[in-house]
Amino acid sequence: MEETTHSSVKKTLGLAPGSVVYVGKKTSSDLYIEVFDYDKTFFEEKELDHIEDAYSFIDSKPITWININGLNNTEAIEKIGGYCNLHPLILEDIANTQQRPKIDEYENYFFVVLKMLYFDQDEKLAIEHISFVLGDGFVISFQESDGDVFDSIRNRIRNNKGRIRSMGSDYLLYALMDAVVDNYFNLIEAMGDKIEELEDELFEEKPNEDITYDIQSLKREILKIRRAVFPLREVVNRLEKSEHELIAKKTQFYLRDLYDHIIQVSENVEIYRDMIWGLMDMYMTTISNKMNEVMKVLTIIATIFIPLTFLAGIYGMNFENIPELKYKYGYYIFWAVLVVVFIGLLIYFKRRKWL
Amino acid sequence: MEETTHSSVKKTLGLAPGSVVYVGKKTSSDLYIEVFDYDKTFFEEKELDHIEDAYSFIDSKPITWININGLNNTEAIEKIGGYCNLHPLILEDIANTQQRPKIDEYENYFFVVLKMLYFDQDEKLAIEHISFVLGDGFVISFQESDGDVFDSIRNRIRNNKGRIRSMGSDYLLYALMDAVVDNYFNLIEAMGDKIEELEDELFEEKPNEDITYDIQSLKREILKIRRAVFPLREVVNRLEKSEHELIAKKTQFYLRDLYDHIIQVSENVEIYRDMIWGLMDMYMTTISNKMNEVMKVLTIIATIFIPLTFLAGIYGMNFENIPELKYKYGYYIFWAVLVVVFIGLLIYFKRRKWL
Amino acid sequence: MEETTHSSVKKTLGLAPGSVVYVGKKTSSDLYIEVFDYDKTFFEEKELDHIEDAYSFIDSKPITWININGLNNTEAIEKIGGYCNLHPLILEDIANTQQRPKIDEYENYFFVVLKMLYFDQDEKLAIEHISFVLGDGFVISFQESDGDVFDSIRNRIRNNKGRIRSMGSDYLLYALMDAVVDNYFNLIEAMGDKIEELEDELFEEKPNEDITYDIQSLKREILKIRRAVFPLREVVNRLEKSEHELIAKKTQFYLRDLYDHIIQVSENVEIYRDMIWGLMDMYMTTISNKMNEVMKVLTIIATIFIPLTFLAGIYGMNFENIPELKYKYGYYIFWAVLVVVFIGLLIYFKRRKWL
Amino acid sequence: MEETTHSSVKKTLGLAPGSVVYVGKKTSSDLYIEVFDYDKTFFEEKELDHIEDAYSFIDSKPITWININGLNNTEAIEKIGGYCNLHPLILEDIANTQQRPKIDEYENYFFVVLKMLYFDQDEKLAIEHISFVLGDGFVISFQESDGDVFDSIRNRIRNNKGRIRSMGSDYLLYALMDAVVDNYFNLIEAMGDKIEELEDELFEEKPNEDITYDIQSLKREILKIRRAVFPLREVVNRLEKSEHELIAKKTQFYLRDLYDHIIQVSENVEIYRDMIWGLMDMYMTTISNKMNEVMKVLTIIATIFIPLTFLAGIYGMNFENIPELKYKYGYYIFWAVLVVVFIGLLIYFKRRKWL
Amino acid sequence: MEETTHSSVKKTLGLAPGSVVYVGKKTSSDLYIEVFDYDKTFFEEKELDHIEDAYSFIDSKPITWININGLNNTEAIEKIGGYCNLHPLILEDIANTQQRPKIDEYENYFFVVLKMLYFDQDEKLAIEHISFVLGDGFVISFQESDGDVFDSIRNRIRNNKGRIRSMGSDYLLYALMDAVVDNYFNLIEAMGDKIEELEDELFEEKPNEDITYDIQSLKREILKIRRAVFPLREVVNRLEKSEHELIAKKTQFYLRDLYDHIIQVSENVEIYRDMIWGLMDMYMTTISNKMNEVMKVLTIIATIFIPLTFLAGIYGMNFENIPELKYKYGYYIFWAVLVVVFIGLLIYFKRRKWL
Repeated sequence: MEETTHSSVKKTLGLAPGSVVYVGKKTSSDLYIEVFDYDKTFFEEKELDHIEDAYSFIDSKPITWININGLNNTEAIEKIGGYCNLHPLILEDIANTQQRPKIDEYENYFFVVLKMLYFDQDEKLAIEHISFVLGDGFVISFQESDGDVFDSIRNRIRNNKGRIRSMGSDYLLYALMDAVVDNYFNLIEAMGDKIEELEDELFEEKPNEDITYDIQSLKREILKIRRAVFPLREVVNRLEKSEHELIAKKTQFYLRDLYDHIIQVSENVEIYRDMIWGLMDMYMTTISNKMNEVMKVLTIIATIFIPLTFLAGIYGMNFENIPELKYKYGYYIFWAVLVVVFIGLLIYFKRRKWL
Repeated sequence: MEETTHSSVKKTLGLAPGSVVYVGKKTSSDLYIEVFDYDKTFFEEKELDHIEDAYSFIDSKPITWININGLNNTEAIEKIGGYCNLHPLILEDIANTQQRPKIDEYENYFFVVLKMLYFDQDEKLAIEHISFVLGDGFVISFQESDGDVFDSIRNRIRNNKGRIRSMGSDYLLYALMDAVVDNYFNLIEAMGDKIEELEDELFEEKPNEDITYDIQSLKREILKIRRAVFPLREVVNRLEKSEHELIAKKTQFYLRDLYDHIIQVSENVEIYRDMIWGLMDMYMTTISNKMNEVMKVLTIIATIFIPLTFLAGIYGMNFENIPELKYKYGYYIFWAVLVVVFIGLLIYFKRRKWL
Repeated sequence: MEETTHSSVKKTLGLAPGSVVYVGKKTSSDLYIEVFDYDKTFFEEKELDHIEDAYSFIDSKPITWININGLNNTEAIEKIGGYCNLHPLILEDIANTQQRPKIDEYENYFFVVLKMLYFDQDEKLAIEHISFVLGDGFVISFQESDGDVFDSIRNRIRNNKGRIRSMGSDYLLYALMDAVVDNYFNLIEAMGDKIEELEDELFEEKPNEDITYDIQSLKREILKIRRAVFPLREVVNRLEKSEHELIAKKTQFYLRDLYDHIIQVSENVEIYRDMIWGLMDMYMTTISNKMNEVMKVLTIIATIFIPLTFLAGIYGMNFENIPELKYKYGYYIFWAVLVVVFIGLLIYFKRRKWL
Repeated sequence: MEETTHSSVKKTLGLAPGSVVYVGKKTSSDLYIEVFDYDKTFFEEKELDHIEDAYSFIDSKPITWININGLNNTEAIEKIGGYCNLHPLILEDIANTQQRPKIDEYENYFFVVLKMLYFDQDEKLAIEHISFVLGDGFVISFQESDGDVFDSIRNRIRNNKGRIRSMGSDYLLYALMDAVVDNYFNLIEAMGDKIEELEDELFEEKPNEDITYDIQSLKREILKIRRAVFPLREVVNRLEKSEHELIAKKTQFYLRDLYDHIIQVSENVEIYRDMIWGLMDMYMTTISNKMNEVMKVLTIIATIFIPLTFLAGIYGMNFENIPELKYKYGYYIFWAVLVVVFIGLLIYFKRRKWL
Repeated sequence: MEETTHSSVKKTLGLAPGSVVYVGKKTSSDLYIEVFDYDKTFFEEKELDHIEDAYSFIDSKPITWININGLNNTEAIEKIGGYCNLHPLILEDIANTQQRPKIDEYENYFFVVLKMLYFDQDEKLAIEHISFVLGDGFVISFQESDGDVFDSIRNRIRNNKGRIRSMGSDYLLYALMDAVVDNYFNLIEAMGDKIEELEDELFEEKPNEDITYDIQSLKREILKIRRAVFPLREVVNRLEKSEHELIAKKTQFYLRDLYDHIIQVSENVEIYRDMIWGLMDMYMTTISNKMNEVMKVLTIIATIFIPLTFLAGIYGMNFENIPELKYKYGYYIFWAVLVVVFIGLLIYFKRRKWL
């Protein structure tokens, strides 16, 4: 998982290109290998202890899906890469969790890099690196750690639901990518909830002052999501347009559909981006509005009592000859004047719509 | 109708691609099927109870328009799809109200997705999903619920007005799309009214504080409209440029005209977008202006009375030897000084243009 | 004239495409038809009462310019359209003042829509719809109402000035379009004046509070101008690049020149757009600056007199035993202290550069 | 020189296209013609009184550079244009100082328009219109007025420095354009100095209030520079890519280099644009910071003295029975309380980091 | 090193194109020449005193890397350029530290310009100009001064690690460029740290007022980084797509990988750009929030004590007949009223959430 934008960038610096170095969190999960072997009529599911046990499945005729969890086990990656004759740069990219989504077309296989996105327990955006190798009759998927979005696909293979068992390995790759993209909609939904929460908070009486920080975090997250989603358009487009024999004509319709979904996610990302940027403006006006309220209260109080206090000051003076002071009802007349001034100011404020 | 941006996104997650699942509001309307069968000389209009009754119209020679309301009746969609040999992904898209506008060209038919937009009773933007299948001699339209913008077309067919009865099914599709797009102009007009209302409110004495919220809502709505309108340019462009034999040469002129209309709507959307973004700035300056007014009142009152109160305080002191207190006209001289100071300050404020 | 962005949008809704409906102001001018018939040696100018009288000019050999004012006379438009065999959609576009600038190339003629722009008596931006049909040996222009920018062209034809009399109808179309575009420079100039006026007003002592409204109006106007000018680039470009035999090789140089002018107008529009957006920021800082000034005055007055008033308050107390009150020169010492405090504060403010 | 964006736009309005009208300042300089005739071995430099004297140089074999200053002498422009058979629109563009940078390729010559940019005595941006005609063996340059950036080229020709004497007229054109572009770097540098000056001023104690105006002027200037520089990319690119025989293969390397320089200028312009836009934000925060300071002073003074004054007011009351007044040390106790309150408030402000 | 954006721009102005002039800091390092000569089996490393000693290595069969430090030694550059037959413009670009990243393809060699970026001791961004010439069997690198990022490559050659010794000169060029790009990740990381620091500072009690200046500096730096990184995309893309025989097929995979890395850096730059722009907004809201706090304190104090002071003023008046003054418990009743008013105001503030 990519915790900060630049964590662990350095680990591969200074190494020869093609070096297989895992740059993610050190505490990644143990090596876990599972294999699905199937065609229209046949089905087998297995957990493997050693990567070498997978070789026979790749060579066998039915469609094979090998799923490998735990990118820190670079040795296993190198072995299977060697067996399948993968280019050294691909092996580097499988282990390099900083690699952005991309597709590479080679003579005998396709290499695809995606990102699984989800909010972790702390409501922080987590990014998991996942890569696929599509070969003739097999797909190998490399995941950073346990837990994925492929359970529905496992079930569809096991129970022969839908058309997955009657299609080739290209359809399997499509189904896996589709599952990843489908999950983006959950993410988008959670993002929308977060934005609405912040909007609501902005209209509360006393918004948390950290709200600028929350908005800035949201910006950061939406920018990361963009970075994971936008290159996908190019990836799927090139996969669909590819004239490589590994991609069957009838799979292209599905890839076009997948492309539509990615566009849809991208558009939502753009809309949320705009909304988040707008939040900052909303917050500014909210602050200004509150300041306005505060100032009004001060002004009303001051404007009413300062002149009255002045009047009281006048008759607190010690001039020997202040005729008003000697009037019998002077004090009561004074109060009457105060009340008149007071009411006059109230009317003035009402007219200015300050009250 | 799509109520929030992400409502019901999840319903199709984890299903096999091509599953026909209605993702809109559950309370959609009942199944309603109507058929128009016509050519230059012949005309028949019918309501059907069962989708199977529509098959004969499709096969018959005159142009047929089958309009199906109620996307939650997925069974009917699957049946007609099966009869017309539609690709499973199309059936999924017909029922998936989240699908963005698009066009798919298949060997024997075109598939077009549009959005009908209107403001509902609560003045909220409602989006209705609508899709068309254009085949040889027929158009099938699938609407999310009752109520549409096609009454003028029904009348033109019934009364043989304009050239619709003498043109093919491609012209019918054009006419239906044109009716949807024409309706956007109403929407644009309503949007313009909303913006003007908000602008006027901004210049009122005491704008509603929720106005930031209203502006943010407007942003959200204009972004949704954009999302519904912008892909249409591509849709109509590809329809016009298509060399499929279903699209007659003479219909292309009409499609080009439709394209022009969409560009016009898009441009208005962009202009309104700019205007709405400007509203926030206007609001900020309005707030600042009001604060300025408040501060000026406070400053004027304080600046006038604080020095006067000070003077009154001076002669309220109890020093034994304050010569002024014993002057016969001391009190009156004091008042004279007050009036001079008062007038001096007034002149000062006038010069500063604060009064 | 298009008064608001969306006025009269609805009039054509629900009509069959190709319906000739005038959507501008109802009080448009009467039908007015003038004809110029000329070649190198021949010249005739006439006012016509009936559109039918124009037919012979079109068929005659010399170049013919028919100018028709008053789009609300849809009957005349339909007649001439029928005689020249124009496509029904063209007739609709001629009358539809909402139509954006565009060019349509048909087999025997070109159809061009432009906008004449000017500021009316109330200093509001007025937009007049104008369209041209270029055929073999003739140009027909349709104007919304009286008054245009073509007088210089009329004179050049009458007096055989420049090369207009020795060129074909394509050059005539160029000359008419060039006159419209040349007039944009006046508009741009007026726009520049308006912006400068607003800038100057912003630096006045007491800017009108409606200035935000004026800026917002200016935004609206510049966006409308953009909408009228930007599509022109495409229009002229396509006219220049056209390989239609109606456009002579030597006219292309002139069209390229026209294209340059449009680019120049577009660039000015973009610059003014940037300037107008900047005005809002300037206004905000101006407000803030003024608030700052107000606050400073308040602060200076309050900071000087509040401590002094406190001191006066001290010696206004009635404690039986306040030794200072009994000093012979107590009152004068008190004044001395006041003056010292006063001067001290003045020095403080000077140092802070508040005075 | 183009003083304001729209000055003198009107002069050509209503004239036939191709009219040679000078639209710059009326007080332009007198006609000044100089000729350089050279090849590898031969060199001649002359000042001419009549444009007709230049004809023989054009026809002669060595490379000829004719430099004509004073665009208001339209007669001379028309004569040389007639002799070289230039298109009338070119002559119009030579004299039209409003013309943006462009390149036109004709059968026998190239026509290039550039802008010389510099800051005049008043530190205002001045734009001088300059155009080149590149023909077979000659370059004619038309300048608006005296003073240019070509002295280094004159010297290189006179002294046979560099490779200019051994190259053709295409290299001469390149060298002239390169001199113009090189000068942009000076401009860019001056612009950078202006921005830094403004930035420094923003951090001064009391920034000039006209600073918003200065920033707005800077925006205006950078937008004008953009308008002069950006089209150049296209101009040089088309010159380099041209397959016209006038442009030798080996000159293309130099043109590519020139293109690089223009890109570099463009990038600097964009960066400065961003910086200038940022200045406004900086100014806003500076104002807000200063306001904050002012408010703090007011608040501290008011918060300290208002409660103290209240206390003094209490013991200035004339109630017959106020026991404290009769205490022997009442007055001193009162002062003690004041000091305690005073110190308490100071501590409070320290804690809030206001002091 | 490029210290300011426009430093030393002028040095080459007015010189003939192709003049080799060093425009960087005058105090650049001494000439330093090192040579690596190697193939699969052979390896030799040498320091040279004279550039002429390098000629034999270039002509020899094994791959040669000549690294030249110290661009101010223009003589050496001219000599080696002459020996390798480099175009004069290339020699100019090698020495011109202002040159932006670019690639030029010539008949017998490639010329590539890059920028090494790092933060110097003062935490300021330093830019070092570096250029490569790739010829048949050799790469020459020209560095501005000592210190580079190539140590890992030197070691890989010396120790025959990775595949560098078994590949051609094109792979060497790739490796060198890759080292430069890898180092950008460090820079990006440092940039991220700087932004986070500023963000943290913004939330401190009393942010440094120079923070606007820091943000503006950061903007400037990110714009410079952009300028160094963005053209690289084009550079590497053109290198990869080149069909020149110097670029082997198998090296293209590596170049594609390098391209991916550059895209990744570019994306990070764009994200940081957005973040930095957001910082200014954050700062504005922080200031406004603080002002709000200040105003609240002032308002609370003033609102509480101004009415109380008024009341005290009332009973400080000297009217002869104020009945309350004569009440036995008048003073105590007065205090009771004060306390009631005081508590009332506290409750009011609590309700408004100001306390």
